This record gives sequence, structure tokens and C-alpha cells, in this order.
Amino acid sequence: MVIANAYHLYLRPGIEAIAQMGGLHRFMGWDRPLFTDSGGFQAFSMGGLRKVKEEGLLFRSHIDGSEHFFTPEKAIECQTALGADLITCLDECIPYGADEPTTRAAMERTHRWARRCQETHSRADQALFAIIQGGHSEGLRRQSAEFLVPMGFFGYAIGGLSVGEPKDVMYRLAGFTANLIPEGKLRYLMGVGSPEDLVECVARGLDLFDCALPTRVARNGGLYTRRGRIDVTAAVFRDRAGPVEEGCDCYTCQHFSAAYIHHLFRARELLAYRLATIHNLSFYQRLMEEMRRAVLNGSFEELRARFHQMYVPVEEETRLAQRKRRQEHSPDRDKEEGA
Amino acid sequence: MVIANAYHLYLRPGIEAIAQMGGLHRFMGWDRPLFTDSGGFQAFSMGGLRKVKEEGLLFRSHIDGSEHFFTPEKAIECQTALGADLITCLDECIPYGADEPTTRAAMERTHRWARRCQETHSRADQALFAIIQGGHSEGLRRQSAEFLVPMGFFGYAIGGLSVGEPKDVMYRLAGFTANLIPEGKLRYLMGVGSPEDLVECVARGLDLFDCALPTRVARNGGLYTRRGRIDVTAAVFRDRAGPVEEGCDCYTCQHFSAAYIHHLFRARELLAYRLATIHNLSFYQRLMEEMRRAVLNGSFEELRARFHQMYVPVEEETRLAQRKRRQEHSPDRDKEEGA
Repeated sequence: MVIANAYHLYLRPGIEAIAQMGGLHRFMGWDRPLFTDSGGFQAFSMGGLRKVKEEGLLFRSHIDGSEHFFTPEKAIECQTALGADLITCLDECIPYGADEPTTRAAMERTHRWARRCQETHSRADQALFAIIQGGHSEGLRRQSAEFLVPMGFFGYAIGGLSVGEPKDVMYRLAGFTANLIPEGKLRYLMGVGSPEDLVECVARGLDLFDCALPTRVARNGGLYTRRGRIDVTAAVFRDRAGPVEEGCDCYTCQHFSAAYIHHLFRARELLAYRLATIHNLSFYQRLMEEMRRAVLNGSFEELRARFHQMYVPVEEETRLAQRKRRQEHSPDRDKEEGA
Repeated sequence: MVIANAYHLYLRPGIEAIAQMGGLHRFMGWDRPLFTDSGGFQAFSMGGLRKVKEEGLLFRSHIDGSEHFFTPEKAIECQTALGADLITCLDECIPYGADEPTTRAAMERTHRWARRCQETHSRADQALFAIIQGGHSEGLRRQSAEFLVPMGFFGYAIGGLSVGEPKDVMYRLAGFTANLIPEGKLRYLMGVGSPEDLVECVARGLDLFDCALPTRVARNGGLYTRRGRIDVTAAVFRDRAGPVEEGCDCYTCQHFSAAYIHHLFRARELLAYRLATIHNLSFYQRLMEEMRRAVLNGSFEELRARFHQMYVPVEEETRLAQRKRRQEHSPDRDKEEGA
């Protein structure tokens, strides 16, 4: 499934332009499932948010500075015209660390907007997701789920997490909120995450994720393996005749050495970004597939244990490397090697 | 066939590194014909040339400023290690407009270097091309061909053209020199060119070409069609629901509208450069294929006439557009439209 963003497409090339081309599936030549996010988070995260009114969001385009007003109705109308298979309600996003009254006010507005979105929603072939908010408070998360679940949406997204809080807080709240969504309804955690996040959140009952991480990291030379993420631009890969990951069945690993990918990044060949992206998306797809299989045959806890035994998260790896370097009294060694 | 460059590969990732990976075919995952240029032209054109000595070329790396010395023997040894199917002698390149003594001296050195290259050439599975020089003088071009042809190379490249001279001069000298190469030997015109150049040079007996133009132009939004090159980033393509070229069987035209390619360029999506490159290479491949067929069945002159009737070269188009704009008294109109 591909996720696209109503905010970005509204600004460029414009919803009307895509609708005239027969909708988003046809425009981008993608005949498999397509999801659109409403754009509330982007209006907030792209730094263009001017004012949240009861009626909707006033924001400035990050492209040309023009002013736009996005209401819940407009968010649904845009997504109706784009024609994705799954669409989302407009929500109000708040920064991490917002106080309780702010968090509560944003949550309650998100609820009123969800009602307006549901009323505007017209195409039976598009499944509408509500977004549960409530910041980092279990009490508010419960209130949000208790408000939205009885409204009977197709599925439920958890918004407002992975915005800077510690990982254990994110895991706890994701799991807490997931358990408030009834069996049989899709549980979608927005903006998450790293491989270890996926494993820990599937363990807590989440079904669906979206994240720019695997593709963005790929374009910077960060490639996922069962042992952790490698930086393929590091000098150590200059002579690595084997693939990025031994045994990986992706196009990149089946056709090219790590040394070649390393060279493409060093030479800034466009092919580098494509091959790295293919590898990371394959890694993520495979991980999710293994988890789905393990859930079905009751072996998920073994998979989870095996994953953590092998996989060293980036933060952990950085900490270990720093300690190792301090012990070696040679703090700049990696830098000198171009690592 | 893909052409790679010994100069670039020598500097990065290094010839040794590629040899250790099993050669260039294997390194880049390309099992079809591969050509390597020796690097004489690149040492010259990348602005790093320090000194031409009888022994070889002294140049500075355009990457890190390090100094390197490239002899004819080294050029062949590098290409032997890279393992391409077709390889070239090292030649001395001179700027357009060089005087007769300079042109003659460079030509004669190129001849001596060709002899040294031939003596160094060792792998029977690599076909060695000599490079005919002689600047823009028919007399020197004749001398160069008369020196190199009796040496019995696999094929002959014509170097030192398409370096700034008027098109009719290039066509005349390419044709003149091609006719000095015996039947049955490949005639390869280096660094050429545009679609109209290919048609005019095939008309004059050339077989083989290499040029960065179709891929470089593609990455800037310039797409070839039977009527000429379009700029797909121009506003007129924003709503173009049809493909870049009606009837084109390339992956890009079969799957996407011109409006989508336009959008990808405006949004700087990496996919833009790939799809545009696929289209232009398909256009070039098809044009060459049509010419091969027409040569074989004796209809080349019809094809040539038909091509020129349809195809408006970029220079000609610019001239017509400028005249049209002057007549409209609105010289900045295209600019205002973002064209």
C-alpha cells in the first residue's frame, strides 16, 4: 500500500489537476491499495500553520507562501476527488509537551471534526479512518477512543505519538490506545517507525504503520539488515564484494555488491538512492510479512525475541561505538576512515 | 551497449577495486556489451590537464586535486583490468581553433600513442579502437586515417569533433573521415549527438555514437519526440493527459501522462529523472533501429527526409520562438508562465 498526502497534493499539482487525470491511482500509475492522509499533521509539521479555528486550519504553503484554509469538509472532498482506497479525518496536531487543557481542547476539536468528516464522507468505495488523539495522557486517549469508536469508523488511526517522547512512553501509549480499539477494526499507528518500533508495536496489537524513515534513511545511505542499520557510505564497504545483506532476496542484493552501492553513493549517482530504497522497503515488507505469519501460527514471541537478539538499534549502536572508541583512546578514528 | 570512462573509474572507485570485484560488467551488473573510453578527453575536458608529455598525460583529479600520470600503456592496462568488450587508445585532445602546428603535433603524438597502445593490448576478447585525430583539417584527417588504418585496429573512432565547430563543419569532417575508414571496420563518431546529428552522420557513413546528451537533457526535463525536444517542465504540460509522445512504446509513455512527469519534475521527485531518461534512451534506440532497418532495405533517404520534415531541432525551434515572441511584442511571456 502507498500512502500519499492530501496537503502536499492540494498544494502541488492541485486536487483538481489530479481529478482531471482520473484520480490518484491513475495519475501515479499505481493500481494497488492507496491511502491518503488528510494533511492536518503536514500543515502543522511543515511549519506553515497560522491558526486553528473551530471551522478549520489556516496555513501558509511551504512552496510559495500563499494562504489556505482547510476545513474537515474540504479535507474529505479533496480525498474524495483523489480517490484513494483508505482516507482519514482531519485532526488537530499539537506539539509534544503541550499542557492538559491544550491537549484536551485539540482532542475535542478533533472529535467534532471527525463528526463533520463522517457527515461529508460520501464514497462507499473509500474506507474512512478516524484519528484518536489525546497526547500523552492515558485518560485523554481513553476519552478519545470512547468518543470515536461508537461512531463506527472503518478503522482507527492513533495520531500524536512519535513526536519526540521517549520510546517506552510511545510504546506504552500505542499499546494502551490499541487495546481501546475493538477487535476486527484496523489499528493504525501514524508516523512509526524503525524496525524495532514495528516489532514492539505489533507486540502491542497494532496492525498498520506509515513512516518516511526507511526511504529517507535509504537516500542517505542507511541500509537495514537483521543486525541493524549500516551506513553503506562508510569506508568499510568500499571492498565488500558480498551484497548489503547476505540472503536478502531484494533486487538490490540479488544484483549488486555492497561495494557497488557504496561507489554509487560516493559518486552521487541517482541509482544509489533507488537501489537503497528498494532494499529498505524490501526489508520492511519482509519483516511485516514474517510478523503476520508468526501472529497467525502463534510464534510471535519467539520472532520478537530472535529479532532483538540479532538487531542492534541505531541509538544503541551509537552508544556502544562511543564507549568502544573511548576505550581505544582514539575518538576520531571512524572520522578519519570516512566512516 | 553502455560506455564507461576509464578516467572516472580510475579516480573513483579505482581500477583495482573494480578488478577485485570481478571486472566492470560484474561490478555494475551489466552482462551486455560494454565500451570504455581511455580517458584522454576527460583529463582534458574536466579541466585537470596539467601537461602533455611524450610519455603521457599529467593531470589533477577533479575530485581531490591529487596528481596523476596517465600513459598509453596505463590506459590500456586500466581498460584490460576493467574488462570491457570494446576499448580505446589514449589520444591527445586539443581545443577547437588550435593552429595547424599544434593540431599536427597532437595528431602525431596520438599516432605514436596508438602504436604503444596496440603493443600493450593483450586480451583477445577486447576489441581495440584507434582514434583518428587531425582537428578540423581534411588534410590532417586524411594523414591520421592513412597512418592508423594500415595498423589494422578492430575499429576506428573519430575524435576531436563536436567541440564547438559549426554543425555543417562537423558533418562535413565526420563524413570525410568516415570515408577513409575501410568497409567492414566500425566507424565510431565520439561525443555525438542530437537526433538530427545521428541522422546526418549515419547518412555520411557513421555506425556508432556515444553522447551524454539524451540522459543529461532528460534530467533537466528535455524530452525527445518526433517533432522535436519538449521541455516537460513548461506550464503547458501541467494538464497534458496524454503521454509525452503519442505512440511511444517506452515504459514511461506506456504508464504515465506528460502531466505526471511534469509534476514529478516540479516536485523534484527522483522518479522524474529516471522516467525522463528511460524515454530519451528509448527514443534514441528506436531512431537508430529505424535507421539500421532503412539502411538494410534501401529506404534510408526517405527516412532522412521524413525525419527532417517532422523534427524541429532545438536551435531552430528557439530561433522560431524568438521571432514569434518578437512579433507578439511580449518577450517575457514564456517566463511569466513558468515555461
